[in-house]
Amino acid sequence: MLIIMKPNATLKDVSQVLQEIKRLGLKSYMSKGEDRSIIGLVGNRMKVLPDQFEAIPGVDKVVSISEPYKLASREFKAENSVFQVRGTAIGSDKVVVMAGPCAIETREQVMETAWAVRESGARFLRGGAFKPRTSPYSFHGLKEKGLELLHEVKEKTGLLVVTEVIAPEHVKLVGQVADVFQIGTRNMQNFALLEEIGKSDKPVLLKRGMMATVKELLMAAEYILSNGNSRVILCERGIRTFERYTRNTLDLAAIPLLHELTHLPVCVDPSHGTGTRSLVLPVSKAAVAVGADALLIEVHPHPEEALSDGNQSLNLQEYKRLMQELIPVVAAVGRSL
Amino acid sequence: MLIIMKPNATLKDVSQVLQEIKRLGLKSYMSKGEDRSIIGLVGNRMKVLPDQFEAIPGVDKVVSISEPYKLASREFKAENSVFQVRGTAIGSDKVVVMAGPCAIETREQVMETAWAVRESGARFLRGGAFKPRTSPYSFHGLKEKGLELLHEVKEKTGLLVVTEVIAPEHVKLVGQVADVFQIGTRNMQNFALLEEIGKSDKPVLLKRGMMATVKELLMAAEYILSNGNSRVILCERGIRTFERYTRNTLDLAAIPLLHELTHLPVCVDPSHGTGTRSLVLPVSKAAVAVGADALLIEVHPHPEEALSDGNQSLNLQEYKRLMQELIPVVAAVGRSL
Amino acid sequence: MLIIMKPNATLKDVSQVLQEIKRLGLKSYMSKGEDRSIIGLVGNRMKVLPDQFEAIPGVDKVVSISEPYKLASREFKAENSVFQVRGTAIGSDKVVVMAGPCAIETREQVMETAWAVRESGARFLRGGAFKPRTSPYSFHGLKEKGLELLHEVKEKTGLLVVTEVIAPEHVKLVGQVADVFQIGTRNMQNFALLEEIGKSDKPVLLKRGMMATVKELLMAAEYILSNGNSRVILCERGIRTFERYTRNTLDLAAIPLLHELTHLPVCVDPSHGTGTRSLVLPVSKAAVAVGADALLIEVHPHPEEALSDGNQSLNLQEYKRLMQELIPVVAAVGRSL
Amino acid sequence: MLIIMKPNATLKDVSQVLQEIKRLGLKSYMSKGEDRSIIGLVGNRMKVLPDQFEAIPGVDKVVSISEPYKLASREFKAENSVFQVRGTAIGSDKVVVMAGPCAIETREQVMETAWAVRESGARFLRGGAFKPRTSPYSFHGLKEKGLELLHEVKEKTGLLVVTEVIAPEHVKLVGQVADVFQIGTRNMQNFALLEEIGKSDKPVLLKRGMMATVKELLMAAEYILSNGNSRVILCERGIRTFERYTRNTLDLAAIPLLHELTHLPVCVDPSHGTGTRSLVLPVSKAAVAVGADALLIEVHPHPEEALSDGNQSLNLQEYKRLMQELIPVVAAVGRSL
Repeated sequence: MLIIMKPNATLKDVSQVLQEIKRLGLKSYMSKGEDRSIIGLVGNRMKVLPDQFEAIPGVDKVVSISEPYKLASREFKAENSVFQVRGTAIGSDKVVVMAGPCAIETREQVMETAWAVRESGARFLRGGAFKPRTSPYSFHGLKEKGLELLHEVKEKTGLLVVTEVIAPEHVKLVGQVADVFQIGTRNMQNFALLEEIGKSDKPVLLKRGMMATVKELLMAAEYILSNGNSRVILCERGIRTFERYTRNTLDLAAIPLLHELTHLPVCVDPSHGTGTRSLVLPVSKAAVAVGADALLIEVHPHPEEALSDGNQSLNLQEYKRLMQELIPVVAAVGRSL
Repeated sequence: MLIIMKPNATLKDVSQVLQEIKRLGLKSYMSKGEDRSIIGLVGNRMKVLPDQFEAIPGVDKVVSISEPYKLASREFKAENSVFQVRGTAIGSDKVVVMAGPCAIETREQVMETAWAVRESGARFLRGGAFKPRTSPYSFHGLKEKGLELLHEVKEKTGLLVVTEVIAPEHVKLVGQVADVFQIGTRNMQNFALLEEIGKSDKPVLLKRGMMATVKELLMAAEYILSNGNSRVILCERGIRTFERYTRNTLDLAAIPLLHELTHLPVCVDPSHGTGTRSLVLPVSKAAVAVGADALLIEVHPHPEEALSDGNQSLNLQEYKRLMQELIPVVAAVGRSL
Repeated sequence: MLIIMKPNATLKDVSQVLQEIKRLGLKSYMSKGEDRSIIGLVGNRMKVLPDQFEAIPGVDKVVSISEPYKLASREFKAENSVFQVRGTAIGSDKVVVMAGPCAIETREQVMETAWAVRESGARFLRGGAFKPRTSPYSFHGLKEKGLELLHEVKEKTGLLVVTEVIAPEHVKLVGQVADVFQIGTRNMQNFALLEEIGKSDKPVLLKRGMMATVKELLMAAEYILSNGNSRVILCERGIRTFERYTRNTLDLAAIPLLHELTHLPVCVDPSHGTGTRSLVLPVSKAAVAVGADALLIEVHPHPEEALSDGNQSLNLQEYKRLMQELIPVVAAVGRSL
Repeated sequence: MLIIMKPNATLKDVSQVLQEIKRLGLKSYMSKGEDRSIIGLVGNRMKVLPDQFEAIPGVDKVVSISEPYKLASREFKAENSVFQVRGTAIGSDKVVVMAGPCAIETREQVMETAWAVRESGARFLRGGAFKPRTSPYSFHGLKEKGLELLHEVKEKTGLLVVTEVIAPEHVKLVGQVADVFQIGTRNMQNFALLEEIGKSDKPVLLKRGMMATVKELLMAAEYILSNGNSRVILCERGIRTFERYTRNTLDLAAIPLLHELTHLPVCVDPSHGTGTRSLVLPVSKAAVAVGADALLIEVHPHPEEALSDGNQSLNLQEYKRLMQELIPVVAAVGRSL
């Protein structure tokens, strides 16, 4: 339920609404728009009657939203959410590129990649220290050692770092290094993890489950938002279908759809979305043309030696070319890189 | 099986290969590349030994291709197929737009749409006279009367016409008006229809089945090509998945994938691909950014009154805006509209 | 729209309803239940008001059904449809088995199979003379020669024959031999074919499209029913999903679901449903346990030599064992074989 | 592992593959086919990832000849795993039924259900104390209070208890009450949870992810097995497809398929598999006919008042009838209840 205040509502009016919500044992979240405040109400809405709030001065109207997500919805917040990560805005006119290897393997690999992608215009290094893998016998990442290498990347190159967290008990540890947490596709509905991340103060890149609808993605974001963390970046990375030539089917129409449904910024991962190196460049162009706020690109200095995802990683030259060819497309939709 | 001739092979060499193929009771197709000819061999390849051909002068090598499509493959023809439809090139640097209503309903509707889309830069009017519908009780098109109206459109506006054919016995009738035949998603594996179309001399827009893999799409094209008709335009129009906010999931990564696998031009239908009017504009930008050679767009002067697909049709103003906003994106990938 | 007559309605009452429907330019279909008649009304229902019929004597009530299929629905006909095919009932307590090769290949193959499956308790020989294949270069069946062999099977063994028809213009030819037409999965929405079959007087085995919903299957049946042919057997044969170990995912819950939604008999094809010989036996047991009225089983005297679908065909011994092991399961659900 | 080269791979490509194999300390053997080379790889495949080779130019695909699961495979253990849970065998000729509410709601609800399902022949009460839900605003279970109620059920009725665990840090707590842990569909690839469960000494009911292949299910089991816990029950509960009449598509062919691939016992959940109360009875019959070792059935004394999954829960009478009608079907496949 959303309580929409009048443009001329006073702080006292708002405060009275918040007290009433508290009195009912419910939680509230506030969104200050350009011309008015909107208060979202979380908890057992069965207890609440719209009348209770409509009588309070300054309240314009009370809306029962039908979609099961609230804080993530455009109704709750009409303007795009733009947030800063150590000086870099996410969700602004500037498209942000996050690039790097699937997994951090060696000091040489990660430092070489970091300098190269910085040079070609990335603001973030991506790279997994903890890797969820289908097989218990596969490489599961360097773990703590990988985090140390990411720390070194930050110190030396000034790049921001996005890295995956795979269990609630790792949130503190990973948070010491990550500028943005990544939640992977298999964990999109790991609710214990979502709640723990929701209590942190770091932005989150939330990947769509390979089996999840757009609605479920928004519900997963709602778990984070309703625990107090409002800085969620949604990430389309391909869904599972019957098609077998590509690793996943990248749902690019979901980008403008998400922009209609939510105020949160949206990222696209063309590397997992296609699973095929040669498709990453054209699909990245499509992603920015359709409205992506950020791109997540796998880059490896020697893809043929990568311990995971080698066949979808660009090498450093391919990445450089990608960044150059993106410039006119980004400009064509009125944005910059 | 493909027989690759040497760059310096003579006409006599080629002719000897063709005679040998004939002697074996097989059919052949020839592709003249920039620097050499390639001869495709169709029929029971069990009968054939590569040696039989490798001994012929001018033959460079004989390749057994493992993908089950041949004439559609890049191995068979390395350069893009570009073909003319009454003076309009398909597959060239110029992106072709085909626009119009789902179904032809009235003379007023089709003429108003035709003039408007021509004005805004379409080269083709799309519009169904024969409509396949899930329900036997739905509107199935104006049939012959619809073809007459399409004929009038051609005469008065000079637009080219693409229209659907749904049964083998209609091919002649529809061919009297259509400049390009359309085969709809439900008929992609209607092999009797594919064979009949393959014997005609008109270009074909072949829509991907909503349940078909990229490989099956290429196999369907192979039916048409192997019957002698080489002018096939492939059309991605969305596949069926579990996602429910959009009508289909548009597989845009299939566009560059198809460009790798085949020499045939590729079209995108963002209207069926999304099923949602507001998504057609951004998704069209993505389609041209990712390499589409043509777009198929549903346009209706009064979408709210359309007898079918109203909620995915643009009105005339929206179509005009689409064409304007496409210009910079098309230019950004080095093409024109 | 359904017009439900009172139990004591007279023939004159019914006749008055039918005349009124005719006067409105609509078509009607009648279903005589155990205690009352129900009249289905087909055509532009916009023209019709329930009041027009409710005033006629003998009319109990007028129901606007919301599902888009009517003649196929349980509302239209409450009792199971049971129909005779040359003395064999389909849809009765007796489960009917249709067995035979995917494609008819030779006289020896088809005759050996026919005698063997008859011996083990099949009432129908299945076998394709016209074969739709993904590739234009695959074996497409013996065509007319195959029909002749089927004719011989009928004469010699007394078995009934079910065989596929793939194009409207073949309906007459195939109908000279087939006791039951088969419409294959790729033709479930070949509406021209459905209409032609709807005008014939032969029963039809309608296979669910590999990417068709249960609702679309019922709509496809509605095409046949609304053209006058009421003897449709629905066939679940597996749908296309992401799973790769099996050829398709057999949707066995669709059997009791269909029994709720429709009065038509339901068949299961475990051969295509699994694509794996070793799974055919256990899955056949599941199919009859869940309520299948018929089974369609691929049997070949030498599966390893079959020109198509060899890896899902039972050999003659396996088929015999299947029939023996089915007996107690069929009995456990109160039916017989 | 086999590395299949493309037809046009060069000698240099092949040589690069061979060098990479040597670098990894493995041996190789080469087979030259008609149109391409295949390289076999011998040694500790744990060190090798297909990705490493797929990225090398000229490589077409990499095929793992043995399945990537070991401890779960029939090769590793030929006989069925049968294990005891406090005196009740799982995987034996006796089919085990686990019944109870989706979520534990009140003392009355759970005790009434427990006595009733015990009376009708269940050996296990199922019931969630911790509930993963798509929405953060839905009922998430009674948590510790729910575990206390389950403890009471065990003491008073003697039933065994299966209940879900949703986070690694809950394993100890839930393990104080659970006789069998349940891992839900959304957590099938929550690897941190799988590892923690793998270190416990309690049996586990592992539900297939709604978008997981059979292979991924076996890989998830492998996580538990390779951490030392050998008592894993696999559970098919329906996968996500395009079909919308049922909540999921129950993949019953996966039961005999799993019995071929693995020695682990297999359970079926017809309640989630169909999402529809009226389908649970027929589908349960199919499940035991096809070889299920256990059934997981949702039962609620008042389904219409259930806080979750009411429309797929049987009431106590329906459950009793289910158990009675199962008896002859179970007997028909040579087992008992």
